[in-house]
Amino acid sequence: MNIDTNLIDILETAFHPKAIAVAGTSEDPLSFRYQFLRHLLDYNYTGHVYPVNPNKESVLGLKAYPNLSSIPEPVDYVICCIPAPKVPDLLAECPAKGTKIVHMVTARLSETGRKEARELENKILHAARKLNIRLIGPNCLGIYYPRGRLANAHNLPRETGNIGAIFQSGGASTMLIRYGELRGLRFSKVISYGNALDIDESDFLNYLAQDDETEIIAAYFEGVKDGKKLLKTLTDVARVKPVIAIKGGRGKAGAKAVASHTAAIAGSTSVWDTVFKKAGVIPARDLRELVDLLVTFSFLPPITGYKVGIFGAGGGLSVMSADICEEAGLTVPPMPHAIREELKKTAPEIWDWIGNPIDGSIMGAVSMGFTEITRELLRLMSGSPHFDFLITEFSDDNPFLTEIGTNLAARQTELYIGLHNKQLKPLIAVVHSEGASTNVSSYQRWKILTEQRAKFAEARIPTYLAMDEAAKAIHKFINYCRSKTGG
Amino acid sequence: MNIDTNLIDILETAFHPKAIAVAGTSEDPLSFRYQFLRHLLDYNYTGHVYPVNPNKESVLGLKAYPNLSSIPEPVDYVICCIPAPKVPDLLAECPAKGTKIVHMVTARLSETGRKEARELENKILHAARKLNIRLIGPNCLGIYYPRGRLANAHNLPRETGNIGAIFQSGGASTMLIRYGELRGLRFSKVISYGNALDIDESDFLNYLAQDDETEIIAAYFEGVKDGKKLLKTLTDVARVKPVIAIKGGRGKAGAKAVASHTAAIAGSTSVWDTVFKKAGVIPARDLRELVDLLVTFSFLPPITGYKVGIFGAGGGLSVMSADICEEAGLTVPPMPHAIREELKKTAPEIWDWIGNPIDGSIMGAVSMGFTEITRELLRLMSGSPHFDFLITEFSDDNPFLTEIGTNLAARQTELYIGLHNKQLKPLIAVVHSEGASTNVSSYQRWKILTEQRAKFAEARIPTYLAMDEAAKAIHKFINYCRSKTGG
Repeated sequence: MNIDTNLIDILETAFHPKAIAVAGTSEDPLSFRYQFLRHLLDYNYTGHVYPVNPNKESVLGLKAYPNLSSIPEPVDYVICCIPAPKVPDLLAECPAKGTKIVHMVTARLSETGRKEARELENKILHAARKLNIRLIGPNCLGIYYPRGRLANAHNLPRETGNIGAIFQSGGASTMLIRYGELRGLRFSKVISYGNALDIDESDFLNYLAQDDETEIIAAYFEGVKDGKKLLKTLTDVARVKPVIAIKGGRGKAGAKAVASHTAAIAGSTSVWDTVFKKAGVIPARDLRELVDLLVTFSFLPPITGYKVGIFGAGGGLSVMSADICEEAGLTVPPMPHAIREELKKTAPEIWDWIGNPIDGSIMGAVSMGFTEITRELLRLMSGSPHFDFLITEFSDDNPFLTEIGTNLAARQTELYIGLHNKQLKPLIAVVHSEGASTNVSSYQRWKILTEQRAKFAEARIPTYLAMDEAAKAIHKFINYCRSKTGG
Repeated sequence: MNIDTNLIDILETAFHPKAIAVAGTSEDPLSFRYQFLRHLLDYNYTGHVYPVNPNKESVLGLKAYPNLSSIPEPVDYVICCIPAPKVPDLLAECPAKGTKIVHMVTARLSETGRKEARELENKILHAARKLNIRLIGPNCLGIYYPRGRLANAHNLPRETGNIGAIFQSGGASTMLIRYGELRGLRFSKVISYGNALDIDESDFLNYLAQDDETEIIAAYFEGVKDGKKLLKTLTDVARVKPVIAIKGGRGKAGAKAVASHTAAIAGSTSVWDTVFKKAGVIPARDLRELVDLLVTFSFLPPITGYKVGIFGAGGGLSVMSADICEEAGLTVPPMPHAIREELKKTAPEIWDWIGNPIDGSIMGAVSMGFTEITRELLRLMSGSPHFDFLITEFSDDNPFLTEIGTNLAARQTELYIGLHNKQLKPLIAVVHSEGASTNVSSYQRWKILTEQRAKFAEARIPTYLAMDEAAKAIHKFINYCRSKTGG
């Protein structure tokens, strides 16, 4: 790989600063300029933080400084929220304070499509180059690094994880973090890099590739200035770690929107398809699919076969689930005769009737031994070479009254987690989430689902919101595993 | 159409019975045999209800009768939950009580794949034919008819609606009702018909086609005994009302599962594709898509053009949304120059920067006039011939702290509903629902979303859980509208 070790050192400083200055802070909670300082404080960042604002004595309880120079110690890292025309003055103060990297929240630059703004952006770049300062952004949220207690938005998880992400869009990056959190994902480092005026996607990818805290890389690109460079970087990086990426701006309208969002040139769908394929990058269409793939790649051991056993949440649902799995490229083999034979003892009434997909409802009423039959059936399937992995399906909709349904769901969840802990076969859970409303019974259902999902996430069983999404993500994962083992 | 008026009269009796007997009731809440009587009582069914159970004095507070014959008045409708071998005896009692239609909850018949069970099923059919009794089922939940206060499951909505549904699977039918409820759907009549031993899918379709309370028909078929008959029926019915249908058991495994679920012959994917296409039926792949299509067909006025204006929930999100709309076959035209010119007054800082999709975040902080610009922009787009319809996108993830985010969401919701009420242009809302967890901030987000969704449903604005689903459903709807207008 073509690594710029100097840049990596500088990025390390940004992730581990001793002192941060936040230039242009505001006390108006409706302003973006308020949020950055606020989040550092809320997140208990342990280094020194200095608000810079010439019009204030203090901001959020901290003494404010009129400029960078008046801060009484060196500043490793500057978060710059001041208006664009004033940025060159701020940069000019940096070398004396030992600042080598600045995160530019500042926006309304080339993404506006205006000539003056583009010229100002160029002026900022030239100033930074001359002063030996590296820039993250502009027009971005910058760094989320839970281990270092650096947060750039409210309510982000405090725990660290194994996923590193680079996102051209700031809003989409916090969505990824928050949606991912609910499915059990945690992040090593997330970088929102906006217009990529100086440090670009290839630089950040190279950084994450060598970062020991990152095992899987997620990316959202809108466009790039140097496609050849990115193809080379992606190819190198995807050899070391799985890279799962969304290309935003695949269509005509999206490409135009990209220009006014992060001032990037989008490139056509077919170009990017080719780039990703050549580089060995796993493509995702939107955030939802990205989260599905990340859950899959983070939680599952390698799977190299397509044969799935489906434990369905009911007759009709199991039929539709089998269709959807087959349409996604998975194989749904019949229930092996040997398993049926072995089931005779536990389930004398239904052993010959159970197929794959399993209609969970034919286990009959709970009183008949639902739990026992389910346990035995799953045990047998887990030990069978006829299945490469199992999908279990939970619905928030069940025939019993709410209280009974809740107990049943809790018991089933325990059962699956117990089985998962034996590590006999990769286990996946689809927790149907079509419903959500404010009425009480629906709140109860929502609570059952979310508690289930949280328990699965804790046990590191991947959960999906629908069978379609599960089947597509697993299929891509299997293809990836096979490509790595030459299968 | 080839209508059996005698059968229609008999089905009318089933929907409007004066007296119902529930044979084989139980007081164990874990038993299916408990639920039917319980739901009729909970739903305040206004006719007479008679539990039949030879081993009980009373069931759920009602006097129990040892058999049908001992009930002191004629019985229009029997819900039969007794074990299959006893069904012929029950049927034999029917003619004397004036019963012409029986709903057989009773299962474990031909769907088990067992010879004896199939023979017993045939015996039941012959008995019914001989006695002039029509059967719904066996192996099904039967009738949900809110107007008549007939419920077959807990917590079903009490309001009536315009959608009639026939479902071979009982569990899937209650899922449809409950998921649909949360999106604002209400039903005229829902029939779960299981093994279709006597009255079959064609009969029910013909019934709904002539039913004045039903405007749109939803169906879930697993298989049919007479494909030619169904093709003819579907063709006739789809001429009168939109028919949206799922074919369960499209793949190999699903087809096998169908046999053990409702004893039906599934037929291959390609056969069914052809049948639906020939008949003018709108196909859905799963319950989620069915609900998406029903919301679309119920709430929207006809749309015959593909041009969409997208009001995105952020930069990255709007870019991805435009991609997804184009990939679904919609057109995302650029923002007309005339609209930008008119915006100059209200939005002097950004008028030239706003495109389609609209990046909602460039309206800037709320203090800058987010609401005013949004209102004006939507007004202009609503009046423009360059757009056939508008999609507005809401995310539960926003850059502001929870309380501010909540207020903002409420204001935006009001704005869209106000615009919708002017009926200038069909309006659609995507309410992103990727997140749900039990922690407090996530509960707040869930609450914002569900309240928003409920308000939209009340205003009859269709909502979708993700852009992908919205775009696909709308595209099918436009195609349907064009086929009806010869476009």
